[in-house]
This record gives sequence, C-alpha cells and structure tokens, in this order.
Amino acid sequence: MSAAASLPPASSASATFVEEAVCGSARCGTLKLRHQEVASPIFMPVGTRASVKGVSALQLEGLRARIVLGNTYHLMLRPGAETVAALGGLGRFMGWPGGTLTDSGGYQVFSLAKLSKKTDDGVVFRSHLDGARVELTPERSMEVQRSLNADVAMLFDDCPPGGAPRAEVEAAIRRTDLWGARSLAVEPAAGQHRFGIVQGGRFADLRAAHLETVSSWPVEGVALGGFSVGEPLAETYRLLVELAPKLPRDRPRYLMGMGTPTDLLVAIFAGMDMFDCVLPTRNARNGQALTFGGRLSLKQARHERVDLPLEAECVCETCSRYSRAYLRHLITSGERLGATLLSIHNLNFYQTLMRRARQAIQQGTYTAFARATCERMHADDEVGERSAKPPSVALPF
Amino acid sequence: MSAAASLPPASSASATFVEEAVCGSARCGTLKLRHQEVASPIFMPVGTRASVKGVSALQLEGLRARIVLGNTYHLMLRPGAETVAALGGLGRFMGWPGGTLTDSGGYQVFSLAKLSKKTDDGVVFRSHLDGARVELTPERSMEVQRSLNADVAMLFDDCPPGGAPRAEVEAAIRRTDLWGARSLAVEPAAGQHRFGIVQGGRFADLRAAHLETVSSWPVEGVALGGFSVGEPLAETYRLLVELAPKLPRDRPRYLMGMGTPTDLLVAIFAGMDMFDCVLPTRNARNGQALTFGGRLSLKQARHERVDLPLEAECVCETCSRYSRAYLRHLITSGERLGATLLSIHNLNFYQTLMRRARQAIQQGTYTAFARATCERMHADDEVGERSAKPPSVALPF
Repeated sequence: MSAAASLPPASSASATFVEEAVCGSARCGTLKLRHQEVASPIFMPVGTRASVKGVSALQLEGLRARIVLGNTYHLMLRPGAETVAALGGLGRFMGWPGGTLTDSGGYQVFSLAKLSKKTDDGVVFRSHLDGARVELTPERSMEVQRSLNADVAMLFDDCPPGGAPRAEVEAAIRRTDLWGARSLAVEPAAGQHRFGIVQGGRFADLRAAHLETVSSWPVEGVALGGFSVGEPLAETYRLLVELAPKLPRDRPRYLMGMGTPTDLLVAIFAGMDMFDCVLPTRNARNGQALTFGGRLSLKQARHERVDLPLEAECVCETCSRYSRAYLRHLITSGERLGATLLSIHNLNFYQTLMRRARQAIQQGTYTAFARATCERMHADDEVGERSAKPPSVALPF
Repeated sequence: MSAAASLPPASSASATFVEEAVCGSARCGTLKLRHQEVASPIFMPVGTRASVKGVSALQLEGLRARIVLGNTYHLMLRPGAETVAALGGLGRFMGWPGGTLTDSGGYQVFSLAKLSKKTDDGVVFRSHLDGARVELTPERSMEVQRSLNADVAMLFDDCPPGGAPRAEVEAAIRRTDLWGARSLAVEPAAGQHRFGIVQGGRFADLRAAHLETVSSWPVEGVALGGFSVGEPLAETYRLLVELAPKLPRDRPRYLMGMGTPTDLLVAIFAGMDMFDCVLPTRNARNGQALTFGGRLSLKQARHERVDLPLEAECVCETCSRYSRAYLRHLITSGERLGATLLSIHNLNFYQTLMRRARQAIQQGTYTAFARATCERMHADDEVGERSAKPPSVALPF
C-alpha cells in the first residue's frame, strides 16, 4: 500500500484517460487534467509564444477550445521561464483559464536554432533571437516546463529528421530513453502530468519496440513524435494504423504536431486522442478557410461579391457575421482582422471536426463518417496543395 | 408648407441634434442618425478600409462604440463602391450594426495619392495602390458615398495644408463652396445625413465667415476640417474655443481627424460633439497604452514582470484579463494579438473619456473635470511625445 501510493497516478488505478466508446480502433473518452476533464478526441490550438496568433483568450473560450499548447523553446528564450513563473505560469500569464501543454523544446531546437552541439548530455545552441548560447538538457527542459507549469509537460526527446537512416533513428531512440529517464528524475509541478514520446522514424519495428519502452515509464500519457517531418504521408498513415492500437488504453495518446483534417481523421481511426497543429492559424494568415466542403482561398477573385458565410452550417463568430466578400477584402487589403477572423473559423472547424468524430464513434459509425467527410472535403477544394487534394495515398477507411 | 416640406430635415423643426445639458460652451446631447440615437460627446473609431485595425465588430460592440468611420478614398479604390453597395453598404459589409460615417475622400486624395491635377471641376489622381488614373469630383464623391450608404456622408471639400498662406486658404474656401453646392445637388441615400465642412486654415476671420456659409447650407451637421494638419497646437486650441460656440446648436458639430485625449477635452470645452482619430489604434500598434494616469510604453523593460492591468479602474476586456507583463511580451515578440488587445484598451479609454465628459457636463463640473483629467494624464506619462506631455500651449481651462 505504501509502495503503491508512491507510484505516479498513471501506473495506479486512477487512469488519466477513461475510454467511453470505441469504434474499431477509434475511441473517445475523457482526459483527466489537473484542474479539469476534457472530452476526446481533442485538438489543441498552438500558442507558440503564449498566444494563439491573432486570437484572444476570450475568442478561444468562445470556440470551446480546452487545451492550448505553448512552446518551451520559444518561451524559455522570451520572456523566459522565470518571468512566466513569476506571472503565475503559462495559463495565468496568457489569460487562459483552460488546459495547457508544453512541448519539451527539443524538436524546435533542432528545427529553429543554430545548433552548436548535441551530445548525450543535451544540446547547446544559439538562440534564433539574439545568437546567445543556450544549453538545453533533459533536466533543464523539465525545470523550464515546471516553471511554465502547464497541465502537461513532455519528456525531453531526440527527434531525428524525416529521412534519417536506421542507425541514426536507433541512436535517437537510445538518447530519448536516456533523456527520458533523466527527465523523469526531475520533480514536476504539483499535479502536472508528464507524457513520454515514442520515436522510431519510419521503422515499424523500432516504433513498436520503443512504444513498449515508453509505455512502461511512469508517465501519464504517451505521444507519437517524429511524424510530419518530411516522410511520405503513406508511410505515416500505415504506421499510425499499425501502432496506435498498441498504445496504452488507460492513458491519452497524443500525435504531435500534425496535421491536416484528413491526417486527424486517419489518426483518430487508428486510435489517437490528442492533436496539435499550426495549420488552422497559419492557413488563415495565408487567406485559406477550411470547410467541410473543401478549402476556400479567399484571395481568389471569385469571392469578391459573394454574400455568403464561409460555411453555411457554421456557427462561429466569423460565419455568423461576415461574408466571404468582406473576408476577401480584408485579406487582399492586408487588414490584420482578416487573419484573426479566418483563424477563428479554422479553429472552429477543427473543434467541429473533433465533435463530429466523437459523435460518430459513440454511434459506431466512425469509418463511414471519416470516409464521407474526406470525400466531401476533397470534392471542391480550391487550394492546390497536397493536404486537401484527394491524397495519392490510400486512406485506411 | 409645401416649400417647407421640401427643405431637408436640418432646416426643419426636426433637429438632428438635441442639446441636453450645457456647461459653459461644452454641451452634451443626442445625435439622431437614420437608425439610432447616439449620446454625445462621441468618439468614432476609424475603420479606414472597412475595418478598425485588428478589432472585430463584436469587440467594438463590447466597447459600446456607436459610430465607425470609413474612408471614401480607400474604399472607392478597394474593394470599390459598387462592391460595397452590392454587399449592402458599409455597415452591413463590415458586419457592424451600429452607425457609420464616411469622409469625402478629398483630404486623403491630397495626402496619399499622387495628385495629378486639381481644378474647379475636381481632382485627378493616381491610385496609391496600382497607379491607376482616378477622377474625384463632388458628384463622384457623393455618388460613392451614396453607394457606401453610411449614416453620414461628408460634402466634398478642398483642404489646404497646415501652413497655407491666406490667398491659398481663400481659394480653398471658394472651391469648398463651389464643391459644396454641387455635392448637395446629388441625391443622398435614403435617410443619409450630409455634413458640411468649414475650412479657413488658421485665419479666424475666414473660419468665422465660412462657418456662417456652411451653416446656411441644408446640411444635417457641420464639421471643422483642416485642423491637425501641421499647424501649431496653440492656434488650433484658440480657434476651437473661438469658433465652436458659433456653430449651429441644433446640429451636431464634428471636429475631423483630431486628436489626442487633451485635444478632445479642449474641443469639448469649446463646444464640439463628434470626434475621430487613428491615435488609439495606431498608438496601440506602437505598444502604447492610454490611461488616465498617463500613457504607458509597453516596450519599456520596467513592465517585464508587472502583474497589474494597464489601468486598475478599467473594465475593458484587456484589463479584465491580461497583465502589463503579458502585453509587453506580446508587443516585444511581435505577436499580433498585442496590437489588438492594446487597441481594445485604448478605444475603451476614449469611450470612457467621452462618458466622463458627458457626466461632468451634466453635473456642471466640466471645466474642473477637464483640468484635473489633463493634469493627471500628464503627471506620469511614459512617452516622450508632444501629445501627452504638459503642452507648451496654455489650455483654455
């Protein structure tokens, strides 16, 4: 009894995820955070620098967003973890009463900073802001995340690039295990969950083995990392369908940093619960609106006098009040309100997608729902990119 | 009786402004627009391109803003008056259910466009967007404004630069009269008010004479134009105090395009009712917050860990939720949310300033209120510009 009491919650009877319905491998349920419970599947808007670009906390509440992601790398450089801590932690700092999650900083060191050195000890890099020399170790990452005090902290991991050969991926896994153990030795903030990250690149056997390793750790959730880093989409979809069902059922399963609406439908089909991606806000800034009838490019002249909302059935603030013509005017005029209003719509689209997926799982109709939704989204898409065109890869449903 | 019936409303018994209280020359009352009545004094946020920069219509409603200004010059070039008309006019186009006012376009042709030619007929200019040749005459301005269909349209005027010599100002007045008559010959939109503009530069006698001319026109309101165009502030204040009381009492008095909180307190003291200025939103984008204790520059390092709202007594969305530290972080990080949140606060500051001025007039304490407010604003100002420093010019109160 005394030994059990010292175990972290994830290994104890109080699961951090309660499965409520399944449909094939897809599942929906409740994710238990420190201060609240959240229905899954869930999409988390990205607030890299403690701000979901152009969207206020009040607007996020209006969207019924529940968890916002902050980036450890950006926040440790500016305004600094100690400043955020002095202001009450990430959520309070950004005026956001909902849930929060921080990544470990590792991925963004590799992608943004001028990396000086990576060893088993950690990474040394030059800040992309001022060139200052900064060191990030597993201990430092977890200390920073403790200061940021999000509801969920990610263990520091080593994420290899998309096309990395097997030996490099194996080395990254070894280092992720080493760093994972050291990350876990750091005391988290009170009630803060810690999630481990599964690596393994595109090698199914490495992924499967690492998944078992990470699942054995005393972590409250398990994430799949290293996807959407340049590898072929077909491989990712195949791997997701193969791997996700093997993740622990009593803990949330988080697919990091991807993706498109289609990606999410595939990942939910595979059994994943949590998602984040900059796509809804980034595409908004480029004048793209996501709809269940395909994407709209508001830069196109065809919208110039269209007195219709982006999406007839949508109840978001943007669709309730503004025409495509007005949004096009804002985008083509460079008015910053355009990106904000499209971000609100696009984030609402993701919220709606998650809500519909949850319903379909509860009703036992997820596969048909996912197939029909993808078909409809691809039918009239206006934007010539891979992500919403009928994918060249076969969908698993 | 039949002759009287054909007169426009401003000359009839149904005044477009009802004075409710006076305090010296200062006054408050009710301005009657097509679809609503608005309490004065009133500040109108500027929505140059049919958008108050970075602030949504819902946020403007939250601020209790009542009239938004759109710029004829910008809107006729993009998206075009016909497009706005096809979308239901300026208010409906921008999702704004409140009042609207458009300027005549003249001032901005002179300040923004590459002016090719100005004659008694009108102006020919090159668009600042694409260099296209565009003609703007009194008739065209009023037709465009009829298409934009704001609640208030301004007669097309000729605004001389701030330091213009007497002869040039006299010529501009002559042309403004010519253009005013031609503007009035164009049928306005149904229920649309038209305001005339008084010119005269810094010449009190020219201003006084032109004021009488414009007041004799069948217009529903009278505006003072050509202030805040580079002339010394002391002159403007003296002229305002001298001229404003001579404006018609049964019609709204609009001071165009200026100014600072101090400017507005002086102008209200003089007897003006309506104001517009880009200052609250422009300063927001530069990281400046207006408060009754002076301006704050959020770029200053002193705010880095200040866990206080911009203004303790303020109830705006920004002050209700965010600390100075967070706002500073957004501004220094270049996060677009920073400008939006500061704009909301600054616009709310102007709303509050107008509400307090109105109360003070009703209570017969306006002069003391204006003096105390100016003193407090100037005491702790952080920004080294003329507008909120103790002005080198004597205030009239």
